[in-house]
Amino acid sequence: MDFFKDRLALAAPILQAPMAGAQHHALAAEVCAAGGLGAIAAAALSLEALDAELCALRAKTDQPYNVNFFAHQPPAPDAGRLAQWHAALAPYYQEFGLHAQAIPTGPGRMPFTAEALQVLGRHRPAVVSFHFGLPEAALLDQVKALGCLVLSSATTVAEALWLQEHGADAIIAQGIEAGGHRGMFLTEDLDSQVGLMALLPQIVAAVRLPVIAAGGIADHSGIHAAKALGAAAVQMGTAYLACPESTITAVHRAALGSPAAQHTALTNLFTGRPARGIVNRLMRELGPISDAVPAFPLATNAIAPLRAAAEARGDDGFSPLWAGQHAAAARPYPARELTRRFIAGWNGSGD
Amino acid sequence: MDFFKDRLALAAPILQAPMAGAQHHALAAEVCAAGGLGAIAAAALSLEALDAELCALRAKTDQPYNVNFFAHQPPAPDAGRLAQWHAALAPYYQEFGLHAQAIPTGPGRMPFTAEALQVLGRHRPAVVSFHFGLPEAALLDQVKALGCLVLSSATTVAEALWLQEHGADAIIAQGIEAGGHRGMFLTEDLDSQVGLMALLPQIVAAVRLPVIAAGGIADHSGIHAAKALGAAAVQMGTAYLACPESTITAVHRAALGSPAAQHTALTNLFTGRPARGIVNRLMRELGPISDAVPAFPLATNAIAPLRAAAEARGDDGFSPLWAGQHAAAARPYPARELTRRFIAGWNGSGD
Repeated sequence: MDFFKDRLALAAPILQAPMAGAQHHALAAEVCAAGGLGAIAAAALSLEALDAELCALRAKTDQPYNVNFFAHQPPAPDAGRLAQWHAALAPYYQEFGLHAQAIPTGPGRMPFTAEALQVLGRHRPAVVSFHFGLPEAALLDQVKALGCLVLSSATTVAEALWLQEHGADAIIAQGIEAGGHRGMFLTEDLDSQVGLMALLPQIVAAVRLPVIAAGGIADHSGIHAAKALGAAAVQMGTAYLACPESTITAVHRAALGSPAAQHTALTNLFTGRPARGIVNRLMRELGPISDAVPAFPLATNAIAPLRAAAEARGDDGFSPLWAGQHAAAARPYPARELTRRFIAGWNGSGD
Repeated sequence: MDFFKDRLALAAPILQAPMAGAQHHALAAEVCAAGGLGAIAAAALSLEALDAELCALRAKTDQPYNVNFFAHQPPAPDAGRLAQWHAALAPYYQEFGLHAQAIPTGPGRMPFTAEALQVLGRHRPAVVSFHFGLPEAALLDQVKALGCLVLSSATTVAEALWLQEHGADAIIAQGIEAGGHRGMFLTEDLDSQVGLMALLPQIVAAVRLPVIAAGGIADHSGIHAAKALGAAAVQMGTAYLACPESTITAVHRAALGSPAAQHTALTNLFTGRPARGIVNRLMRELGPISDAVPAFPLATNAIAPLRAAAEARGDDGFSPLWAGQHAAAARPYPARELTRRFIAGWNGSGD
C-alpha cells in the first residue's frame, strides 16, 4: 500500500513541516488545498489556541492534516542553572534597559499530555507527529485509537529503530541540514548527527516502515534525490518560510532573503535544545552552543524580552532565525503554488 | 561537452577519492580498469615514492587517472604550541612507555611544490586534484600547461566560486558526510560546513563548471541522488576502503566493519585540521576538536609513535580511522567489481 497516496489520498507525499511560531492554519490550509499534507505545530500553543487553530483549519479545508507535538520530559527547575543563564544574558538586559522582572514565567514549550489528547479527540487529525521521541505508551495508544497515523523524527539509525519498536507508523529521517530543532532523543552528542545523503539510505535499510526525508530539500531536485535514496515522502520546512502565509517576524523574513542565510548553525541558546538557525549576534557572542543554558525549554523565557526589545528596533540579533542549510532556495511563492510545484516535482513533471 | 565521458573517456563519471595512507596504485589501477577514474594521493608520499607510484600505476593501466595534492601553506613552527600538544599527549606516552625522542621530525604532509610539478611533468596525468584550495597561480598555470584537468574541493558556495575564479576546471562539492580531511580553505568555522543535500544544488546553481558530488555516496541510490541534484560526476572514498586493495591497517578495517563505524566525528587531533573519522579513544578523551593541537600538519608527528604502539597491541584508540557517515555501506568487493557496480548505477542499470 502506498501509505501517503492510498491512506491519506495526497496528490503526492509532500509534507509541510510543522513550525512552531512560524506558521499557523492559514499556511497549512493552502498546503492541504494543493494536495500536500499541511501541519499545525502545537508546542508553542495553549490547548485553547490549538483547538481554535484546528477549528480554523477545518473551516478552510476538508483534506487530511498533521498536528505536531513535542514529546520531551519537562525538566525539573534548576535555580542555579537559571541564575547562570540570567547572568550570561545580563549585559544584554542592561544594553536594552530591561529588568529580570520582564522575564515571563510558564513552561516555554508544552509537551504532549492527556489534555492535549482531549483536543485531538475533538478533531481526529489524520496524522499526528512528534518531535523528541514519542509520548509514553498508554498515551500513544490512545492517539492511535483515534485513528491517527503517528510519525516521529529520527536523527540516527538507532532512533529510527527505537521509533519503529515503540509504535510509529512512519519515520521522518531528519538530516543535519534541517532547520529548527534537532529531533534527537537518544543522544545529546551533536557529532552523532548525520547528513541526509548518508542518513536516509541507512534508515531506509534499517526499518520496515515508510521513511520521510527531511533536511535540505527545497526544490524538485531535492525531491528527486530523496526519492532515489528510498524516501516514501519528503517533508519541507524552510522552503515554506518565505511564503506570504508564514507568520515569521519581519527580521526573520529579511534574514532569510539575505546572504546571511548562507550561514546557519546548531544553537541551544534560544530554547535549551540544539536547533538550526541563521547565525546572529547572540550566537556569535555566546557561541552557538553554550553550557550556561538551562535544560529545554527553560532557556526560552529569558530570551523573550531581549528578542522583543531588539525586534522593536529592527534588530535580529536575539531572535531564533530558524532555517535549514538550503534556505537560499526558499522562494516567496504562495504556499498553494509552492506545494503544487513540489507535487509536480515528485510526480516527475516539475521544473 | 560531457567533460568526463568525452574528454576522459570514462565508462561513467565515477571518481575514486584519493586517500593518503589508505590506498596506492593497486586500488587506483583496478578502478581505472573498470572505467572509473582511479587516484593516487601524494600528500603523504616523498617525491620519489610518488614517482614510483605513478610508474607502477602506468605499468598496470593506460587509462586516465588523478593525482591529488594538498595545497596548504606549511605553518611556521610554534614551539609553545607544540609543547602544549606534547603535554596533552604525555599521559599516553607514559601509558605506552614511549619517550618524546620517539617523535619523528619532518613535515608530516607535503603541499604541492615546484618539485612535485617536475614529477607531474614526467607522467602528465589526465587529472590533478587539490585539497585545501589551489597552489599559487604561477604553479597552477604550469600544471594546466601539462594538459592536466584541475579539480579542487569546495565545502561552501564561497569556496566553489573562489575555485572557479582561480582556474579550477571542475568543483568537488564535499558534503559534511565525507570521510577524511575537510577541504575547507576560506573558513575555519565548522558551523559553515553543509550536508551534501543542501551543498550540491547550491554549488551547481552558483558555478558554470561541472560539479562532482562527494560525501555520503556509497551505492547506486546515492549516485542517483547526486545526479538528481545536478552532479556531473560522483567521488567516493569510504566506499573503497573495504576493498581488499586498500592499504588500511587491520584495526581500521575492523572498525569499518563494526557498529563503531556508525559514529564518526570531525576531529583535528590527528593532523591539526578537521577530518572525519570513526570515534575512538583519543577523540573521546581529548574531545574530537582540541585547542591544544598545533597547526596542520604539525600535529601528525606526535601521534605517530602512539599509533604504532597501540596498533601493535591491536588497539585502534590512537589511529586516524578515517571514514564518512555512510561507512556502513562499504562492502569488501574488489575495487574493479565495485567500480563496475557504480558505473552500472550511474548508467541506470545498477542494483
